Amino acid sequence: MISVVILGAGNVGTHLFKGFNKASEVSVIQWYNRSLSTIQSYQNLVDITDDLKALKDADVYIIAVSDDIISGLSSKLPFKNRLVVHTSGSASVYDLDMKHKRGVLYPLQSFSKDAEMDFANVPICYETINKDCYPILKKLSASLGSPTKRINSDQRRVLHLAAVFVNNFTNQLYRIGHEITESEGAEFDLLKPLILETAKKVQDISPFRAQTGPAKRNDKKTIKTHLKQLESPHHKAIYELLTDAIKHTHGRKKL
Amino acid sequence: MISVVILGAGNVGTHLFKGFNKASEVSVIQWYNRSLSTIQSYQNLVDITDDLKALKDADVYIIAVSDDIISGLSSKLPFKNRLVVHTSGSASVYDLDMKHKRGVLYPLQSFSKDAEMDFANVPICYETINKDCYPILKKLSASLGSPTKRINSDQRRVLHLAAVFVNNFTNQLYRIGHEITESEGAEFDLLKPLILETAKKVQDISPFRAQTGPAKRNDKKTIKTHLKQLESPHHKAIYELLTDAIKHTHGRKKL
Repeated sequence: MISVVILGAGNVGTHLFKGFNKASEVSVIQWYNRSLSTIQSYQNLVDITDDLKALKDADVYIIAVSDDIISGLSSKLPFKNRLVVHTSGSASVYDLDMKHKRGVLYPLQSFSKDAEMDFANVPICYETINKDCYPILKKLSASLGSPTKRINSDQRRVLHLAAVFVNNFTNQLYRIGHEITESEGAEFDLLKPLILETAKKVQDISPFRAQTGPAKRNDKKTIKTHLKQLESPHHKAIYELLTDAIKHTHGRKKL
Repeated sequence: MISVVILGAGNVGTHLFKGFNKASEVSVIQWYNRSLSTIQSYQNLVDITDDLKALKDADVYIIAVSDDIISGLSSKLPFKNRLVVHTSGSASVYDLDMKHKRGVLYPLQSFSKDAEMDFANVPICYETINKDCYPILKKLSASLGSPTKRINSDQRRVLHLAAVFVNNFTNQLYRIGHEITESEGAEFDLLKPLILETAKKVQDISPFRAQTGPAKRNDKKTIKTHLKQLESPHHKAIYELLTDAIKHTHGRKKL
């Protein structure tokens, strides 16, 4: 049984609490948050506290707070030589105070506070600078029922960066699709099956092979028509840049 | 019972044949293709031909060929005053010869030749310049088990344009995610659940509400770190442009 203390009650902290609380090999023995009221409703499930001095002995301390306050919080922990991990995709493992055994548990998913999280769809990337801590981090990650992957800091950083492209930027393209269709009173809803299909396709084949459309075909007539249709200069600039990127990827254009 | 002749045997033509062939209210009485060998294997299911003069009488002729040859093919049809539709998102309904009753059946989905197509996930947008043809086009579209939507030419054009954003451009962002992760030996596979979740999210909430990440938060430190990490000037340009677009959408920046 791995004993865990969770620090922080944002989206990630809350989902991790719920996930670990269900895991049979893990016992969440305490949940810390700066403001106790946020976690008050969980007090029948777990010991809650807002006092760092009251933290219990545990095998792993999981810091799930904003990147900016990881360092400060970790140095305030009133113990040393215990395993302390943060959950950030971008913060350095060295942001944690060097008095600790240090590591990272990075859940690679987009968390919404309200929606239930199925950890089977949340790869947990784990990392530590204390070699002997790999087994416990692997066991901890796997206890959620998640796919697990040992990575290094460089890999975590590129995964976090790539996640911005496939999540935030992709979502912005959906938003543009919404703007364009609404401008003519067409329904964005009609695009939803296509959005889902596009995401499903790359579960099985590479994005390179999955590509279709006017840019890949170098269909100049359609591209010209589309550019004429676009009224927003910002939409036009995105159309041009991504069309060029596709042409480049598919050997239609040198950069 | 609606009798249909399909012309063309590319992705769309082939999937429409299979879809209509299963529909109980529709009878595909003939399938035309320039090259007979492509459809030879279907000859036990349907009358096949490569001879336009041999076309049978039907209620609807569906032209599923490249945009460039819609016009030529429609004018070669040896009859007039019958309902002829094309399936293109971008070609004008006026590309069809004026001797016909003219319309469009635009299936809004990305078709792969190999994969089975579930028409429940393919909205059919229909359009005609002969008002009295709306009912038969609606019935025909619905026979596939598809969501159906009567639209006009402007709406079809913006849907086709928006489809490029949410399908081709999104897929290119997946490709960039692939390039970035591979560059550090990280696994693209780890991003697949996030890709799917991002697409699922906007099935229920608007892309505006679904947005998260450094650009939306105007998290300058993370944005700066990401830009430093990106080695390709092309990736950097896309990062900057889409970050600006998100900031603009979420009131962080005037354009």
